[in-house]
Amino acid sequence: MEDKIQDLNKTAAIPPPLGGRGAVGADIQVFAPATVANVVCGFDVLGFAVNEPGDEVVMRMTGKPGITISKITGDNGRLPMDPAKNTVSVSVQHYLKSIGRTDIGLDIELHKKMPIGSGLGSSSASTVAGLYAIKTLLGDESDVAGLLPFAMKGEEMACGHGHADNVAPALMGGFVLIRSYEPLDVVRLPHPEGLYCAIIFPDVDVPTREARQIIRKNIQMKDAVTQWGNIAGLVSGLFLNDIDLIGRSMKDILVEPVRSMLIPDFYKMREMAMEMGAVSFGISGSGPSVFAFTRDEDTAHRITQKLQQHLTGIKIGSNIYVSTINDKGPRVIG
Amino acid sequence: MEDKIQDLNKTAAIPPPLGGRGAVGADIQVFAPATVANVVCGFDVLGFAVNEPGDEVVMRMTGKPGITISKITGDNGRLPMDPAKNTVSVSVQHYLKSIGRTDIGLDIELHKKMPIGSGLGSSSASTVAGLYAIKTLLGDESDVAGLLPFAMKGEEMACGHGHADNVAPALMGGFVLIRSYEPLDVVRLPHPEGLYCAIIFPDVDVPTREARQIIRKNIQMKDAVTQWGNIAGLVSGLFLNDIDLIGRSMKDILVEPVRSMLIPDFYKMREMAMEMGAVSFGISGSGPSVFAFTRDEDTAHRITQKLQQHLTGIKIGSNIYVSTINDKGPRVIG
Repeated sequence: MEDKIQDLNKTAAIPPPLGGRGAVGADIQVFAPATVANVVCGFDVLGFAVNEPGDEVVMRMTGKPGITISKITGDNGRLPMDPAKNTVSVSVQHYLKSIGRTDIGLDIELHKKMPIGSGLGSSSASTVAGLYAIKTLLGDESDVAGLLPFAMKGEEMACGHGHADNVAPALMGGFVLIRSYEPLDVVRLPHPEGLYCAIIFPDVDVPTREARQIIRKNIQMKDAVTQWGNIAGLVSGLFLNDIDLIGRSMKDILVEPVRSMLIPDFYKMREMAMEMGAVSFGISGSGPSVFAFTRDEDTAHRITQKLQQHLTGIKIGSNIYVSTINDKGPRVIG
Repeated sequence: MEDKIQDLNKTAAIPPPLGGRGAVGADIQVFAPATVANVVCGFDVLGFAVNEPGDEVVMRMTGKPGITISKITGDNGRLPMDPAKNTVSVSVQHYLKSIGRTDIGLDIELHKKMPIGSGLGSSSASTVAGLYAIKTLLGDESDVAGLLPFAMKGEEMACGHGHADNVAPALMGGFVLIRSYEPLDVVRLPHPEGLYCAIIFPDVDVPTREARQIIRKNIQMKDAVTQWGNIAGLVSGLFLNDIDLIGRSMKDILVEPVRSMLIPDFYKMREMAMEMGAVSFGISGSGPSVFAFTRDEDTAHRITQKLQQHLTGIKIGSNIYVSTINDKGPRVIG
């Protein structure tokens, strides 16, 4: 069976003519959004994009075949400048190879505007920004979802596994279901208008690889049934515009009990958020970031401020964000 | 948290006045539909109702407190006439107790119009017909979903566990998700118009209890992830009216591999149905009935006829049915 990406088959990029923005010297600046993977009950199959934070990539056509990385900011020197080791350049290289255009010369600047290792899809945001930059520079008008396999190559390098639950929503915007990996089958889901996301990143170290390794490999069938009842409930709530059902369904009895151990005062923070009117509260991706859905912006701000205060009280720094769902994915900003 | 049934809280039956149809001597005849539980990937959480087959209950107000069963047809003597042991009378008794009307006298006739032990929700159809009959006789106008807890009492007696994946769709019609049992949370799902269901009941014995016991109690997390990606895909396909997505999602790697062993030539029948244009093929409930979704009535008929022929060839009798999805649940027929 062929890969299905939003039921669009026109996903294969066709070698585009050079010209217009694709000429030597042309440049572009692209923003791509942070993402919340798993969405509590949808381990490895669900994710959504937010409007804030995100990463930025500046890309220039150099005329000299090959990719260079001239600048990375905001990473405290943690990301590789070597184009063979950076997820942005590696995924762009895969894309160029697929369209038979390895003759192209590119220089990349990566501006990290969001924390690394936060569980907010930091590498995905960078990768998607890079891929959207080159697609736009070359005037490739095929569906953006066609970039997904290249973005997954970047994830494979960054996290050790080519998952799509961050890159797919970063690329396509909104809520995305990864129904299947083999073949790749990605479905965009609707969501209620006016759903706000409050994000708190406690500045502690939870590497993705390790956060995966602590997850149980064997589970009880009855727990799996509970979990898939909840996933089906969350998906139904998204389609039905039913925020109560979304809240009731966002429970995770399989992964959260283990991963929450790596997050300071997780259950205390959840209690606080729920008492303040959150619809739901859980871990973003593999953590340590946590997020709450709320019905309005004000509640989201009060939750982020209260939880930041709480973390400060136990000597843990944090970044906080309040955002609506990002429905557009990456965008050109310059 | 309170139980949620279709987000309607008006589910508690209120003691209604006797009068009108509820007078001594009043009678009613009700049909309730067969149901397909699990729907391949939704083990224990999904089910849908069909228009054919189903069961019929005739109920009469006798004026003498207590419930009698005067006749059961179509069961080859397999069902108990004792009102304390028959699922119909037991669930009706629970309902009468809940509304404080154990003073009422009833006589029940049960006409089995579908095979017992078929995996098509035979006991659910009878129970729901009985509950709908008494509700209507008494002029109880509360939401029909409020009967669900009483119907589950009947299931508990019939199958040893009070599951809702047959009774909920039999009662509410259409596709139903049982998101949670504690608290009970039931969500009605839409479905594409023009979806046909081809049902084949091979006449072999697969008792529900035993079919449950062979299911593995422990499973791999990675298999559970595959399964809940598919459930989320099926629910999405139902909302999106996307029959291709429904078909791609209806895969079961956890329960079918075990239960299919109890069904003669299961994989051969699937191969035949898919070759003839079925959207999907799988086990109905705990079997031995199997079902296929098709895009048109003609394909459904060709599949049931071909599979019946095949089963005859291996000396197994069968019943076959072709139906659209039943959206209304039970109905008064006399």
